[in-house]
Amino acid sequence: MTEQLHDTSIRGFASDNYSGVHPEVLAAIAAANDGHQGAYGQDVYTERLQQVFARHFGEGIEVFPVFNGTGANVMGLQSMLPRWGAVICASTAHINSDEGGAPERVGGMKLLTVPAPHGKLTPELIDREAWGWGDEHRAQPLVVSITQITELGTAYTAAEVREIADHVHARGMKLHMDGARLANAAASLDLPLKAFTRDAGVDVVSVGGTKNGALGAEAIVVLNTEASEGLTYLRKLNMQLASKMRFISAQLIALYEGELWLENARHANDMARRLRDALDAGVTAGELPGLGFTQQTESNGVFATLPPGVADRLRERFRFYDLDAARGEVRWMCSYDTSEADIDAFVAGIREELTRR
Amino acid sequence: MTEQLHDTSIRGFASDNYSGVHPEVLAAIAAANDGHQGAYGQDVYTERLQQVFARHFGEGIEVFPVFNGTGANVMGLQSMLPRWGAVICASTAHINSDEGGAPERVGGMKLLTVPAPHGKLTPELIDREAWGWGDEHRAQPLVVSITQITELGTAYTAAEVREIADHVHARGMKLHMDGARLANAAASLDLPLKAFTRDAGVDVVSVGGTKNGALGAEAIVVLNTEASEGLTYLRKLNMQLASKMRFISAQLIALYEGELWLENARHANDMARRLRDALDAGVTAGELPGLGFTQQTESNGVFATLPPGVADRLRERFRFYDLDAARGEVRWMCSYDTSEADIDAFVAGIREELTRR
Amino acid sequence: MTEQLHDTSIRGFASDNYSGVHPEVLAAIAAANDGHQGAYGQDVYTERLQQVFARHFGEGIEVFPVFNGTGANVMGLQSMLPRWGAVICASTAHINSDEGGAPERVGGMKLLTVPAPHGKLTPELIDREAWGWGDEHRAQPLVVSITQITELGTAYTAAEVREIADHVHARGMKLHMDGARLANAAASLDLPLKAFTRDAGVDVVSVGGTKNGALGAEAIVVLNTEASEGLTYLRKLNMQLASKMRFISAQLIALYEGELWLENARHANDMARRLRDALDAGVTAGELPGLGFTQQTESNGVFATLPPGVADRLRERFRFYDLDAARGEVRWMCSYDTSEADIDAFVAGIREELTRR
Amino acid sequence: MTEQLHDTSIRGFASDNYSGVHPEVLAAIAAANDGHQGAYGQDVYTERLQQVFARHFGEGIEVFPVFNGTGANVMGLQSMLPRWGAVICASTAHINSDEGGAPERVGGMKLLTVPAPHGKLTPELIDREAWGWGDEHRAQPLVVSITQITELGTAYTAAEVREIADHVHARGMKLHMDGARLANAAASLDLPLKAFTRDAGVDVVSVGGTKNGALGAEAIVVLNTEASEGLTYLRKLNMQLASKMRFISAQLIALYEGELWLENARHANDMARRLRDALDAGVTAGELPGLGFTQQTESNGVFATLPPGVADRLRERFRFYDLDAARGEVRWMCSYDTSEADIDAFVAGIREELTRR
Repeated sequence: MTEQLHDTSIRGFASDNYSGVHPEVLAAIAAANDGHQGAYGQDVYTERLQQVFARHFGEGIEVFPVFNGTGANVMGLQSMLPRWGAVICASTAHINSDEGGAPERVGGMKLLTVPAPHGKLTPELIDREAWGWGDEHRAQPLVVSITQITELGTAYTAAEVREIADHVHARGMKLHMDGARLANAAASLDLPLKAFTRDAGVDVVSVGGTKNGALGAEAIVVLNTEASEGLTYLRKLNMQLASKMRFISAQLIALYEGELWLENARHANDMARRLRDALDAGVTAGELPGLGFTQQTESNGVFATLPPGVADRLRERFRFYDLDAARGEVRWMCSYDTSEADIDAFVAGIREELTRR
Repeated sequence: MTEQLHDTSIRGFASDNYSGVHPEVLAAIAAANDGHQGAYGQDVYTERLQQVFARHFGEGIEVFPVFNGTGANVMGLQSMLPRWGAVICASTAHINSDEGGAPERVGGMKLLTVPAPHGKLTPELIDREAWGWGDEHRAQPLVVSITQITELGTAYTAAEVREIADHVHARGMKLHMDGARLANAAASLDLPLKAFTRDAGVDVVSVGGTKNGALGAEAIVVLNTEASEGLTYLRKLNMQLASKMRFISAQLIALYEGELWLENARHANDMARRLRDALDAGVTAGELPGLGFTQQTESNGVFATLPPGVADRLRERFRFYDLDAARGEVRWMCSYDTSEADIDAFVAGIREELTRR
Repeated sequence: MTEQLHDTSIRGFASDNYSGVHPEVLAAIAAANDGHQGAYGQDVYTERLQQVFARHFGEGIEVFPVFNGTGANVMGLQSMLPRWGAVICASTAHINSDEGGAPERVGGMKLLTVPAPHGKLTPELIDREAWGWGDEHRAQPLVVSITQITELGTAYTAAEVREIADHVHARGMKLHMDGARLANAAASLDLPLKAFTRDAGVDVVSVGGTKNGALGAEAIVVLNTEASEGLTYLRKLNMQLASKMRFISAQLIALYEGELWLENARHANDMARRLRDALDAGVTAGELPGLGFTQQTESNGVFATLPPGVADRLRERFRFYDLDAARGEVRWMCSYDTSEADIDAFVAGIREELTRR
Repeated sequence: MTEQLHDTSIRGFASDNYSGVHPEVLAAIAAANDGHQGAYGQDVYTERLQQVFARHFGEGIEVFPVFNGTGANVMGLQSMLPRWGAVICASTAHINSDEGGAPERVGGMKLLTVPAPHGKLTPELIDREAWGWGDEHRAQPLVVSITQITELGTAYTAAEVREIADHVHARGMKLHMDGARLANAAASLDLPLKAFTRDAGVDVVSVGGTKNGALGAEAIVVLNTEASEGLTYLRKLNMQLASKMRFISAQLIALYEGELWLENARHANDMARRLRDALDAGVTAGELPGLGFTQQTESNGVFATLPPGVADRLRERFRFYDLDAARGEVRWMCSYDTSEADIDAFVAGIREELTRR
């Protein structure tokens, strides 16, 4: 029954959700086991989680553990909007490009998308869609959603978030942050979570766990309770209410009560840095012909371009995804469990494929 | 980080989802850990799960692991219906009474409910709402959903399911089964899963894991692939697609590859039987004044009536829910981890409260 | 181009929407024609309509002309509810039985239905579903909807509405009235519209025009502006915003500025009264063997039972609908254009069919 | 009651839905009046309409009269798509920019938008979003929607539609056409309706009436019955089923049985031509300093740019809308009732404002 079916030596750079569960998170799940606890969040772990997150984000917040990031984002946004609301986001935003239309279909919201260089919105970019309030023919832009770390691996500085928040609030809108990789942002910025979220004016944030060593655990954290309504009901009716919630909460406690969240994220970022540095050095030395980079490496992903054919050959040994096959752009993601040896082997593999003839 | 916050000695009879995770399920999660596996179901555990369920239900089925029972039911039904479809179900059905309106809001389906004694539909009851095809003013009744074990603890026999299926199919409708407690039904009927599902004409079944010792794992199993469409997409857009799906699949493998599913369910049923037998004996002996029963005990729940005030006093020591407070009806659920000692202590408690003066 | 294709001598008792447009309404449409007027309600007719309805319902109301009754009801209710809200209604309510599931699918609301004798809710009946606030597993009952005239032709008295409103408000809910036949109710009760709506505690009412001589014109009238939100946006996104709204508003002005609404409704009611009186006399005289009545005749419909076969034979000469074919129950509706001769011919026909051998 | 409240001398260039109803359409409504006709489309006018449109589009089509263009487009698209489908359209498409989010909220579809010069899609532009089939993370692009006349006044030639249709069909998608101004396109292209719709590969078309002299009448015409499903039910549940449908059908018969549809559209186009020609001449003559044009004048709208301040001054005398206030772009629409004198007065007004000092 407890058979291990997979080859645990397989590693790759496809996604930070290809990795498994950090041992401390598994241990926390086991510790939360046995005996009876109230279902649907009426348990001591979910209660404790409120305090754990209050230490990060300050008092007066509300925490709603959910199953996955899609749920966290769609419900968080829905709780911020009337039925006629729309969300301004970058066209690269995960909610626009990777949720199978869940925000529109299940959330009932229209996304007003803006092409954003490096995946980052600015007040100017926001204003391209921030208009038309009071006009019933236009879905009303009432929330701006930014992704921290962006889908292109870049980070908003605290000042950039603040500038956006002020801009957004001045126009009567609210600010949502998709924080599936919020820990990587904290590691990248070297700031406490609060500094670039609540202190910077974010109203509601999705806090990720799964991509950072959890089995499956995300949380909607309402930082400004005036900006969100009804999540208790929305979580249920959107089919994101876990009966044995204690095990979701325990995972988030394992990550966020101590420093594990930060250690995991820092390590993943460091591995991406190690990859980028090694490749930069190779490029400088002329050893990696045809390799280019499309984004700064500010977190746990490296975004590169490769000559035709190289990506597919390299993929026979290391799994990863194209970002834009037409222009040869690829995405290499590091995880909490990526090792220095993994990086070094990958760099060697890249070198071989690029210099092969 | 791995601190145990709860008192593991606490037990109750509130719900089979108040219990934790069976040790073998936890071990299976651990065994599925480490290394990288494709996300979103591209992993060897999810692949294996197809075979595991094929052994139970036969070849040609499709298995979609999801987070919870609400998701399994709403999506399973949605995949069986056009946008204008309606579902006939008992008014006691979980999809009608306990899903916060998810079938209507997220699934977009109308429920046509029928009062059903003991929670069980019959051809006659179904026909109260099975009419009006072709009339655009009426949401079209195209699926019948039955719950096995019902919300009142009763079980449909294989012959009853067969009769319903034939009736339903003869009218051009399809048959869905909410099997959150499917294992308890198999234990109760002493039949293989296939005998009262696929062989009896069920088209799509939700197979439960969470209430039977999993951490959080359910599956939609399509038994008749002509009766369901698009679950790959529906699972994603309904926010029920797990990124680290291997851990959901591993739980279901742990339960369903061997006999654990059946042992757990049989044990829970046996504990309810023990409870009912002890109470029946007490009633016969005149030791339990005012105690009555509203349903046969055919699975892991006992449905009883208590004199005014008794339930609340008893609840100070053992947690459980009212089913209908107005008529003094309560529900006592047993779980895979309910012990004989738990039952005996509870019976003693009931006796004390009923005979107290 | 302006050819008349139909036989204008055909009359029946199928529905009050089988009749056409009252000449004064047609004249009003013509008078609103020519020149340019702002679209989407920015016109003088829609502006005037606010005053016309304010004369009926008092100051401080809001009027939203829409295309049809389904739209008026679904949007009116939606504007009164959060996304997690449910509506308590009689199981016979049009929103439950005749809207093709629009309230659930488009409105996203769950209907909590109660069997109601004679189609009328009471505080006691409402309380069967008015519970569970704060429980996220239950769609939250936040609005009660009553139909005036009910689908069974009965009328709520002003006192009955008041009693319901007080009950509903005391429980923190709101009261909606489906007034597709509101004019018939006023005629039946011999009361101003305000007396049994706003003065009786109704928060939002759908005011019908189509069944009372309009071409196609209904209005949502918000009587308590604290009870409804966002109708401007909801009307557009629910596809009920007319571009040339002046012509919808002009119809409603034609009806409601003077007495036409009341004359039409009174006439339709009188014709049903004439029908019922003639039939009652025939029954008393023993000339109508097998004819029975299932409802009081309080408006423009007569609800009767006929021996097997009679309805179908009668229908060869006069069109009307079965209400419940199994029990031989039929519905005979009168319209603003039903004549005394129509009634007399119908009574003769009924007599012939009942006494035929 | 039949009082005329508005100043019929007011004319403007704001929208073709600011005009009223063509006298022949009004006469047709009157001719359809009196007597009883089956509701909800069971009438002889709706029956005749099928034949009227079959003469334009060929046999084997299906016609669904609806209230407005939003309804026609959203339901037409919905009938072509599974729940997981998406629609590729120009970012300027009315369904994207002017429907208050109805396609997403009510239709449940994601729009995949492409910036399109002059409002027209091409195979190359379509391919920017035509990818990702089978990937559950991407809303599945299964329909392409084009607008004929586009929102920028341009027309697709029959060859352009054909090229798009072939491209779309080759990729397994379907082609939808928003034909709110289909008549203007026929007049512009000097082609029968069939030539650039069904013969060019369009699967479903929204045929407009309201902007071309109707009171309020649009139709979904299914040209390829294999490409659309369930409109009978969708029309009802989307609240677009008219009870007195005979009057909607009669309007469309009035327009489309003879040549009125074409005469009205041709006249509106001619007036725009007259406006453009006069302005072009003025520009050539140096009399209209600062006036520019952003689009070809291919139908009943002229798209121009004006120096700062001019639009607002001009608007004090003639009503019209900005298209893009930031760049001084305005839209001048002509209607079936725009007169040569209206144009001449407007040209004079433009000249005065542009040469004013």
